[in-house]
Amino acid sequence: MWSGGSDGRFNRRAIRVEEAQRRVLAAAGQTASEQVPLAEAGGRRLAQQLLATSDWPPFARAGLDGYAVRAADTAQASPEAPAALRVVDTVAAGGLALAAVQPGTAARIMTGAPVPRGADAVVMLEQTAEGMAGGERTALVKAAARPGQNVAPQGEEFRLGSPIAAPGELLRPGHIALLGTFGYADVPVYRRPRVAVFATGSELLPVAAPLAPGLIRDSNSAMVAAMIRQHGGEPLLYGALPDEPEAVREALRGIVGEANMIVTTGGVSVGDYDAMAILLRSLHHYGGEQQESGASQDMLLFNRVSMRPGSPTSAAWMDGRLVLALSGNPGACFVGFELFGVPALRAMQGAPSPFHRKLHAVLARDIGKGSPHDRYLRVSLQYREDGSVYADPLAFGKSSMTASIAEAEALAVIPSGSSGAEAGRIVEAWFLPQ
Amino acid sequence: MWSGGSDGRFNRRAIRVEEAQRRVLAAAGQTASEQVPLAEAGGRRLAQQLLATSDWPPFARAGLDGYAVRAADTAQASPEAPAALRVVDTVAAGGLALAAVQPGTAARIMTGAPVPRGADAVVMLEQTAEGMAGGERTALVKAAARPGQNVAPQGEEFRLGSPIAAPGELLRPGHIALLGTFGYADVPVYRRPRVAVFATGSELLPVAAPLAPGLIRDSNSAMVAAMIRQHGGEPLLYGALPDEPEAVREALRGIVGEANMIVTTGGVSVGDYDAMAILLRSLHHYGGEQQESGASQDMLLFNRVSMRPGSPTSAAWMDGRLVLALSGNPGACFVGFELFGVPALRAMQGAPSPFHRKLHAVLARDIGKGSPHDRYLRVSLQYREDGSVYADPLAFGKSSMTASIAEAEALAVIPSGSSGAEAGRIVEAWFLPQ
Repeated sequence: MWSGGSDGRFNRRAIRVEEAQRRVLAAAGQTASEQVPLAEAGGRRLAQQLLATSDWPPFARAGLDGYAVRAADTAQASPEAPAALRVVDTVAAGGLALAAVQPGTAARIMTGAPVPRGADAVVMLEQTAEGMAGGERTALVKAAARPGQNVAPQGEEFRLGSPIAAPGELLRPGHIALLGTFGYADVPVYRRPRVAVFATGSELLPVAAPLAPGLIRDSNSAMVAAMIRQHGGEPLLYGALPDEPEAVREALRGIVGEANMIVTTGGVSVGDYDAMAILLRSLHHYGGEQQESGASQDMLLFNRVSMRPGSPTSAAWMDGRLVLALSGNPGACFVGFELFGVPALRAMQGAPSPFHRKLHAVLARDIGKGSPHDRYLRVSLQYREDGSVYADPLAFGKSSMTASIAEAEALAVIPSGSSGAEAGRIVEAWFLPQ
Repeated sequence: MWSGGSDGRFNRRAIRVEEAQRRVLAAAGQTASEQVPLAEAGGRRLAQQLLATSDWPPFARAGLDGYAVRAADTAQASPEAPAALRVVDTVAAGGLALAAVQPGTAARIMTGAPVPRGADAVVMLEQTAEGMAGGERTALVKAAARPGQNVAPQGEEFRLGSPIAAPGELLRPGHIALLGTFGYADVPVYRRPRVAVFATGSELLPVAAPLAPGLIRDSNSAMVAAMIRQHGGEPLLYGALPDEPEAVREALRGIVGEANMIVTTGGVSVGDYDAMAILLRSLHHYGGEQQESGASQDMLLFNRVSMRPGSPTSAAWMDGRLVLALSGNPGACFVGFELFGVPALRAMQGAPSPFHRKLHAVLARDIGKGSPHDRYLRVSLQYREDGSVYADPLAFGKSSMTASIAEAEALAVIPSGSSGAEAGRIVEAWFLPQ
C-alpha cells in the first residue's frame, strides 16, 4: 500500500546552456548611462560611439630629437662627408615652427615639435653635430635622410570625425589614452548594474558567526559579490532569504527599483525545503515568448540546465527584472554565475559580445567517465614551449571542491556522452577573469 | 672651427630589462596592511597567511537530497527488488541528526545536512520512493549504494589549522569563498599603493582644454592612472611638472609622504628641454649598491634600458621612494609602465612573483628588421583549433601608434639581433591584463 506522491519536483525539463543564456540575455536589459572623469573610466563600458575631434597627429610632428631637413639636401651625406646646413630655427615641443626650411638649411627640433614648412624629414641628434661655420650656426648631418623619416604626418593615425571607440567597448588603458588625446575629459559609460544578492538555506550562518553543530557559513554571497565587481557591477548583499516560498516572494518584491538584477544562491534543488525551487515552479513557465526587459508578467525562464555542475540552476523574470537562482554548492554557484551572471552583467553594460573569450586547449589528462550533461570543468592552463596550450582539470567531478575555484583559469567544456574524454584531445575552454 | 659640445646626454649606459626590473623591485618596498570587509576584498592582496579555523566540511555532509543509509543494506537493491528501509528521521540542512541509522533503517536527508551516525552513504532521491508499509514510514531504495557515496566526510577538504591562502595572494572569487567558509569577515590586505603621476612637456594641454597650434593633450596621465588602478594602486594625478630641473626637483620633494611611488611621463630623452633627463643625470649613479626601501641617499637607478620602445625609460630613488620616469610617447609609456610599474605595484602589495604571466606563441607574421635592443611588441593573440596560440603584432615598429595599445593582449619579446624574426617562430610573450 504505497502513497508516495509526486509534486512535479522531478519533472523539470533541462534546456541547453546556449538556450538558457539566450533567455537570460533577452531579459537582461541595459543600464542608463552616466558621465565619469576620464581617469576613472578604465574598466567601464562606453555608452556611445566616440569620434576623433581633430586629425591625429594634429600637425606634422617630429618623432625624435634632431634636425628637420629637406631629405634631398642630405642625399650624399656620410660621416666622412657630412652635409653642412645652416640652422634657421630651434623648434621646441609646444613651440611653433616660424621659419621655413629652405634648401641648404635645417631647424633644430625636439621630439613632438611641429615640423617646419619645407622640411620633409628629421635626422636624429646622434647622427649630427652642431657648431659655428663662417659665423653662422651650422648643423653637420652625417647620414642621408629618407623623405618622411621620423615625421608623423598630420592625420596619420586618425582623421577628424573618424570613430575611435565603439559603444559597449570595455575601456582599457589604451582607450583611455585615445580618449584623452581627443579631449574627452568626461566619458559617457553605462551605469554599474546593481545586483541584489540573497542566500537561502537554513543551515547558513553569517560569515562573522561562530560555527554551530550542523551549520555552515554563507560563503557564496561574498564570492558572488567579488564576481559582480570583477564585471563592473555593484553588489548589494541582503543576507539570507526566509525559508517559506511566500516569504521569499515578498522579500524579492521588497527590493523593487533598487536592483537591476537579483541573484540567489541555494534552495533550487529537489529538497523538501528548497524554497526557491518551490516558488519558481509556481510561476508561469516560459513558452517561447521573447522576454522583453520591462515586461510585466512574472515568468520562469528555466529551472534545469543540461550542465554539470549546477543543473538545477534557474532563472526567472519577476517584478520586471531578471532573477538568477544559483545552486548553493560553491563550485556550482561559481560556474552558474560565470555562465549566466557574467554575460548578463556584460549585456547590461552594452557589451556587443557578452560571452567569454574562448580558446582551444589540449586536455592534459583523462576525464574518466561520461555524463548525460555537458561538463564545465575548472582547469588551469599550461602554455608550453612549442606554442601549445594545455588544460589541466582541477579536482574534477567534485563540485564541492571549493579550493579549486581560486586556481581555475578557464572552464573547459566536455560535451555530454557515454564516455569521458582522453588526454590529448582538443577541448573548448572559456577564459575566466585573472 | 667647430665648438659643438657634449654634456653627457648621449653617454647613458643601457642596462638589460631584467637588471632594470631588479633595481626597481629592490627599491619598491611594501605597503602596510589594513583590514577590509570580505565582500570588498576581491582583487586585493592578502597581507598574511590564513589558516583553516575548523575542519572542512565541519561534519560529514550529505552531497545531495535523498536517504542516508547503510550501504550494506542496499547491496542487492534494484528497481525490481528495492530495499525497504524504515525511515527513522528527517534531517534538514541546518538541522541535527538525532537518530542513528541502524541496520534496516534509513533517514530522509537534504543536501548539506549532517549524515546520521551509522549511515555511510546517501542515495539520491530520484532512486527512491517513500510510502507507508505495515504502518511505518518506509523508503524503497532502488539502487545499491557504495560506501561513502554522496557523503563528504568531515575534514575532507581542509583540516583545522591547515593553510588556506598565502601572503601576497591576489584574492580571486574562489579565495573569497574559502575565507568566508572559515569565518574571515574582515581580511588583512596590503594597502593600495598611492602613486603620484606627473606629466612633463611644454607641449601638453590638460585633457579638457581645446587644441592650440603646436600643442597636444596629456593623454598619458589618465592612461597611467587606469593602469595603476588595474593593479590595485590608487593614482594621484598632479598634472604637468615645470620645465626646469630645479623646479621639477622641488615639485617631487613637495609630495613627500603622500605617495609610495612617483611616475613621470615625458622629458627623459636627449632633447634640450628634457628636464627629467637633466635632473636624473645630476644624481649619484647606481654603482651596484643594494637599494633599500627607506635608504636616504638619492640615486639614479638607470636612465637607459636595452628595450624598444622606451629605451630612455629611467628610474631613480629620491626622497626615500621610487621614481619611475617614463617616455612621453604613449606606446613607450605603456610598455615602460607594464615592464617596471606593474611589477613594482605587485611587489608593494606583497606578490611573491611580481612578473607577468608568460606564454609561448607562434609569431603570426614576419618582423622585418633587426634591432640592437630587445623589442616588446604589442600583439593580439589567436587561439587556433589545434590548441596552438599565435601572436600577431599590431602596428609594429611605430611606437606612436596609440590605437594599437587598446587592442594589445600581450607583449611579445623579440630578442635583439641583426635580423628580425620570421613568421612561425616561437616567441615568448607577456600577458597584459584583459
